[in-house]
Amino acid sequence: MNNFTFYSPTYFVFGKEEENHVGHYVKRFGGTKALVHYGGGSVVRSGLLDRVKKSLEESGISYVELGGVKPNPRSGLVYEGIDLCRKEKVDFVLAVGGGSVIDSSKAIAAGTVYEGDFWDFYQGRPVEKALPIGTILTIAAAGSEGSPDSVITNENGMFKRGASGEGFRPTFSILNPELTQTLPAYQTACGITDIMAHLFERYFTTTSEVEVTDRMIEGLLMAMVHEGPRVIAEPDHYEARANIMWAGMMAHNNSCGVGRVQDWASHDIEHELSALYDCAHGAGLAVVFPAWMRYVYRKDVMRFAQAASRVWGCPMDFANPENTALAGIEAFRNFLKSIGMPTTLGELGARVEDIGQMAHTACFGDARQGAVGGFVKLEEKDVAAILELAAE
Amino acid sequence: MNNFTFYSPTYFVFGKEEENHVGHYVKRFGGTKALVHYGGGSVVRSGLLDRVKKSLEESGISYVELGGVKPNPRSGLVYEGIDLCRKEKVDFVLAVGGGSVIDSSKAIAAGTVYEGDFWDFYQGRPVEKALPIGTILTIAAAGSEGSPDSVITNENGMFKRGASGEGFRPTFSILNPELTQTLPAYQTACGITDIMAHLFERYFTTTSEVEVTDRMIEGLLMAMVHEGPRVIAEPDHYEARANIMWAGMMAHNNSCGVGRVQDWASHDIEHELSALYDCAHGAGLAVVFPAWMRYVYRKDVMRFAQAASRVWGCPMDFANPENTALAGIEAFRNFLKSIGMPTTLGELGARVEDIGQMAHTACFGDARQGAVGGFVKLEEKDVAAILELAAE
Repeated sequence: MNNFTFYSPTYFVFGKEEENHVGHYVKRFGGTKALVHYGGGSVVRSGLLDRVKKSLEESGISYVELGGVKPNPRSGLVYEGIDLCRKEKVDFVLAVGGGSVIDSSKAIAAGTVYEGDFWDFYQGRPVEKALPIGTILTIAAAGSEGSPDSVITNENGMFKRGASGEGFRPTFSILNPELTQTLPAYQTACGITDIMAHLFERYFTTTSEVEVTDRMIEGLLMAMVHEGPRVIAEPDHYEARANIMWAGMMAHNNSCGVGRVQDWASHDIEHELSALYDCAHGAGLAVVFPAWMRYVYRKDVMRFAQAASRVWGCPMDFANPENTALAGIEAFRNFLKSIGMPTTLGELGARVEDIGQMAHTACFGDARQGAVGGFVKLEEKDVAAILELAAE
Repeated sequence: MNNFTFYSPTYFVFGKEEENHVGHYVKRFGGTKALVHYGGGSVVRSGLLDRVKKSLEESGISYVELGGVKPNPRSGLVYEGIDLCRKEKVDFVLAVGGGSVIDSSKAIAAGTVYEGDFWDFYQGRPVEKALPIGTILTIAAAGSEGSPDSVITNENGMFKRGASGEGFRPTFSILNPELTQTLPAYQTACGITDIMAHLFERYFTTTSEVEVTDRMIEGLLMAMVHEGPRVIAEPDHYEARANIMWAGMMAHNNSCGVGRVQDWASHDIEHELSALYDCAHGAGLAVVFPAWMRYVYRKDVMRFAQAASRVWGCPMDFANPENTALAGIEAFRNFLKSIGMPTTLGELGARVEDIGQMAHTACFGDARQGAVGGFVKLEEKDVAAILELAAE
């Protein structure tokens, strides 16, 4: 295990109706004037936004609003939010929504107290300071409610890039599984895929002797394999939603990823897909991740066999562990299909003709240095080959 | 899953030689004058205490010292520490040691800023405020480095009781597995037992639909089953020590115990053993926990069968799940024996004649209300019956 630091100071409030106390938490953590940041219609239509405002008012918290966050959130709205926060002297950013809304809120929170261009953070500058951030989560997926990460698409070039740092850990996060019970099956499945991808990105490592985090990751994956189909079959299953919601946070707050090299190539490659086609991040991951697995598994056959055996219950082929490794990859792909995810570029609406461009941008676009991935270092030709596999 | 809040704001610094930067962390978190609190000779002999002082001095942190914490830490030294902190205007308590030292430090940190008797907290008053606490952990066991808990023995009556509250979460904790490599096998095994007990106390629950935390607990238990014998066989195995150390923190910071009723009867019963015979807490748990399991498993045979199957790999007896449940309990007991733990009262040096007194004190001593345990409510006669089983 490698040396590491781990700091997850977010105050989590989990369960039914807890969003109705949001004003109390903003106040408790020192907020006096909030930016309420959200996406589109569903937060308004469901009455959630009204309940949030009511709670803020009851706690004497004044606020301004900024809606309109889209999936794959854009830099334009971030600049708008920063201007608004500065003008209105906002001291707390409250995200009401999913990963996109939270990521946009994080960018605004950091940008408001930073003299330069907020995009600096998305080119590698660590985020040390930001306005305090609170979240009310409406989809279990990105894990941004507990993570130090944010992903934004720069409209100037359509680069989709991530930023990270302690300033990005939310001060509090309210997780009410009820708020996710009305999500359509497709979005739910995208969330499940994203959570599992966060676990696999950590699982495939070059660091040896990491049994404790291996076992935690495998446990969380098994919980997703159990709960995923239940919630697709029965969308308003509170208990399944609750298990998935906590797994989504645990998958990405990094307590199961400490002290080990992580990969993240599949995320980097997927970002090119969603930047180009504006597809759902989870759907893009469903296409990319199994292809990535098929391309790289020979690097550590036994690790892939371990996942196949422990997570998917594949029988171990002791004479030829490669068979077990491949059976595990196939089991993952079949699972994704079973919850309604696309697993080929074609199903995603992506074009084989764009593969060259995507591979190039993944490796060289914006601030990139020529390769992606921690488990296996992938160069442009490797990324292209993975996307070719994903076309099959 | 039940509603819950989860707040674990401790900054963890993990890995080789990290204790040499302790001064930096005390300073970073606002300390200017520290109480350095520790146990006995080993911290001095190993040179650890000198390195800690050197680091504090290099960061310009002044300090006073208080050694002498014993296993099953006592109230007398806590009062002494509180007086010292007040007199010397200490603003940071630094624990250098294991669970006993950390628990004693927590009591001092809370007592210093509280007008009443610190024992109030150990009779049920939640700990909201305390001086900031830093820890340098020297044994993986109690999980106190990341938990909101502390256990102290009141010399006035020899009651061993726990206190809890947000003020008890350490501000930072330094976890260097190297510091545990010199521990004798017996103490190491006591630590392993304590960690597994923390997991089982959470596992046995009346709350249904808790797959995600079930899987996390099972994963951590399997990691302990893997690493435990390795570290007993090879005490200076850094990687095994490292895995156990992170598991010990994760087992007790409660991220795997949220939203579910927990038990804790075995801990309550064990506290009577260690209060009366001053035995090691882990050794007492090795005696009590399997006996508790044998006494209560009929309450939820399938939960015990699940643990047997998933953690211990016992084949499921579908015609008679009770056989599987019992095989799992036997596997746990055999594991404890294999790492050198006692599993009977006799081996612990405890006397059958004291069972009545211990059962009575567990249920009625000090501030107790007549029963212990969340999974099964145990009255005095049940506790006595469990201790009788433990005598076998």
